[in-house]
Amino acid sequence: MKSKKYLLQEADIPRAWYNVIPDMAVKPAPLINPGTKEPLKAQDLYPLFSKAAADQELNTTDRWIEIPDEVRDMYRIWRPTPLVRARGLEKLLDTPAHIYFKNESVSPVGSHKLNSAIAQAYYCKQQGVTNITTETGAGQWGAALSLAAKHFGLELAVYMVKISYEQKPYRRSIMQTYGAEVISSPSMSTKAGRKIITDNPNYQGSLGTAISEAVELAMSTDNCKYVLGSVLNHVALHQTVIGLEAEKQMEMAGEYPDVVIACFGGGSNFSGLAFPFLRHKLIGERVDTRFVAAEPSSCPKLTRGIFEYDFGDEAGYTPLIPMYTLGHNFRPANIHAGGLRYHGGGAIISQLKHDGLIEAVDIDQLDTFKAATLFARSEGIIPAPESSHAIAATINEALKCKVSGEKKTILFNLSGHGLIDMTAYDRYFANDLTNYTVTDEEIAQYTKDLEKIL
Amino acid sequence: MKSKKYLLQEADIPRAWYNVIPDMAVKPAPLINPGTKEPLKAQDLYPLFSKAAADQELNTTDRWIEIPDEVRDMYRIWRPTPLVRARGLEKLLDTPAHIYFKNESVSPVGSHKLNSAIAQAYYCKQQGVTNITTETGAGQWGAALSLAAKHFGLELAVYMVKISYEQKPYRRSIMQTYGAEVISSPSMSTKAGRKIITDNPNYQGSLGTAISEAVELAMSTDNCKYVLGSVLNHVALHQTVIGLEAEKQMEMAGEYPDVVIACFGGGSNFSGLAFPFLRHKLIGERVDTRFVAAEPSSCPKLTRGIFEYDFGDEAGYTPLIPMYTLGHNFRPANIHAGGLRYHGGGAIISQLKHDGLIEAVDIDQLDTFKAATLFARSEGIIPAPESSHAIAATINEALKCKVSGEKKTILFNLSGHGLIDMTAYDRYFANDLTNYTVTDEEIAQYTKDLEKIL
Repeated sequence: MKSKKYLLQEADIPRAWYNVIPDMAVKPAPLINPGTKEPLKAQDLYPLFSKAAADQELNTTDRWIEIPDEVRDMYRIWRPTPLVRARGLEKLLDTPAHIYFKNESVSPVGSHKLNSAIAQAYYCKQQGVTNITTETGAGQWGAALSLAAKHFGLELAVYMVKISYEQKPYRRSIMQTYGAEVISSPSMSTKAGRKIITDNPNYQGSLGTAISEAVELAMSTDNCKYVLGSVLNHVALHQTVIGLEAEKQMEMAGEYPDVVIACFGGGSNFSGLAFPFLRHKLIGERVDTRFVAAEPSSCPKLTRGIFEYDFGDEAGYTPLIPMYTLGHNFRPANIHAGGLRYHGGGAIISQLKHDGLIEAVDIDQLDTFKAATLFARSEGIIPAPESSHAIAATINEALKCKVSGEKKTILFNLSGHGLIDMTAYDRYFANDLTNYTVTDEEIAQYTKDLEKIL
Repeated sequence: MKSKKYLLQEADIPRAWYNVIPDMAVKPAPLINPGTKEPLKAQDLYPLFSKAAADQELNTTDRWIEIPDEVRDMYRIWRPTPLVRARGLEKLLDTPAHIYFKNESVSPVGSHKLNSAIAQAYYCKQQGVTNITTETGAGQWGAALSLAAKHFGLELAVYMVKISYEQKPYRRSIMQTYGAEVISSPSMSTKAGRKIITDNPNYQGSLGTAISEAVELAMSTDNCKYVLGSVLNHVALHQTVIGLEAEKQMEMAGEYPDVVIACFGGGSNFSGLAFPFLRHKLIGERVDTRFVAAEPSSCPKLTRGIFEYDFGDEAGYTPLIPMYTLGHNFRPANIHAGGLRYHGGGAIISQLKHDGLIEAVDIDQLDTFKAATLFARSEGIIPAPESSHAIAATINEALKCKVSGEKKTILFNLSGHGLIDMTAYDRYFANDLTNYTVTDEEIAQYTKDLEKIL
């Protein structure tokens, strides 16, 4: 094993988040107000989000956005996180590649999600909001927001995707331990939920559905805001602390990544790790660095979706987002990487992908658990099923280096640990898991009318 | 929250473990060979343990024992661990006390147990052993040894206390993910297990029983050694990296603890944190520091046991240990802090307690979960049920300071996180947990014939 950690001090926690849009030659197309069909203004988002989050969402000019002291103070609970040279994995693969990972699993909730949860809860508190609501897939985001809400004294209701609510009871318990209310989604508590249950009583839920329910609750409740864990620009912004720290740590290691890899659901951990490094590519300093988003082959929006305006949620409550999408009614298979079961890629990532600045690969479920087991046994950390997509993509890159003899430097994000996901591992070892690859027909069916939305 | 971390660099990982015995004015009485009734020699232990562990067990002269490079290299996966000033908890309690905790929960298996697992697996590997076996209560030790065994290429069989095997399936899965074999104890695979099952078919197991089974397997299998997770001197020795790091970190914080607190099952995390600080008391530098072991009121060996020679296991296979004990046949109640369900205090700790150098308190199960919830909500980390005993004892000390106005410095060990123990939290919130206080009659019954053993 003999892996090496690169550790920063608390003073090294970034003081500003990095907004990638000002450095993009081609900006993402604007979000569209579905009612007026006009480009969205920040004010249009004020009823739904905190004012600060809404302003950040539409900020295309400020490259650096200061992190409030209260947020940075909370980051100190677990940040800075370690960067690790994964010598155990390198040795196991017998690769000349140097593999590094940023270990975001050390947060008290076990994932990177706390980076944005704290910021968004803080902004709500700051403007006098008392109640917040959100959705969660695997429960990583819900757990993070529960902790943040408790700290800032906010009441929180979490719509948890039904399959995760049942598969991952421990994450539900974690949210309840922090004091949050957790509702299985689809639920009878919203119009959106009732409609979906009526149409399809056995539906196991998806992030798109849970978002609809949370948005509906926020819009119909006094002094209640909606908080999102991925997809949107301001969430990606908050997550850039990951890459900003990793930049310093790669300097300590005396290397610069040739390939930067993260798993991809709505883009939060990918953006967080990649954007600070991507900046050097966009401004012409490091033009050869590759950026690889690893998504599940059961939910392949970046590799096989279409680039169109689409809603962020099942019911069509959100603004229209210009993005690679499988259609907002896409029903992803019941894979264990619940955090990646989302139909769209978000505006920034999708534009970057469209412009060839980032790449995407899709990974089968069985390959992710194979990679996860190799990683656990060589590096000691049991990874989350989501993060295991990044590990599988990393292993693929490292094995290519073995063939070519290239000594590439690969950096990936270990977005979370899998200690709450042991049921999935049990099923993997019992040969009780399968791959789910979406057919072209399914994709065509879910995306066929998208161009008519606008 | 706004808690402050004190972080060391990898170069600060200790290079030697601290052996407290040379500094004790009154040494522990010797271990006794139950066959010959003579003081045990290291050679007597060679069939059971690795030679290095056996030698360390009986080493009463070397104050510092060098940590092998291979072990220190593995420590680098997660060490040094943070020391945290728990300002969130201080604020919640409104106490003038300064509360610090050493965060051992950041290890990849979620507890301090890896500190000794790595050392013992290394020593076995070094002398050509191929198979090892052990017991585990809650599964923390078994998970740690599974990871260590995989790293050094050893086959491992773990006897897991039946109640934990059933209550904590995730810990079993973790061990299996690392490649270990896990057997529910009592089992039909050993004489000791068969006897216990025959006598009491519904018995939920205990550490004492599981130790008997593992010892029997080791003694009856070629090239197989037994590895223990607590109680013995060499385990306490390996755990002193906790306190040695904490000493440096308290210096960084500019304070010295008035009270040092850890939970107590067999003594591994208590010894690990306490001994390096206790050294300053023993050599007359810091005579006023108090050391408090927090044990469950359902298994109160230090507070209510008798000081006698007793076996370390249910079946009577181990050497006789001079210690505070509830009797090796004591059957602890089914509390969720499975790691603390052990009948004896070990030789060093018991001698120190006998000589008034350390104290012990007992904590009710409901108080531990109340403390755990306060801690989770104020510091963000969900603690293991075991560690929550230390938190409850810390809160009691901090509240005394609130009454007296004293500004004491309290240091406790967060030996592990509770993310795998969410079932216990669910039951606590559902008012489905109770206290179990042992009666004097029960203790008298289990301890009545102990003086006749020798």
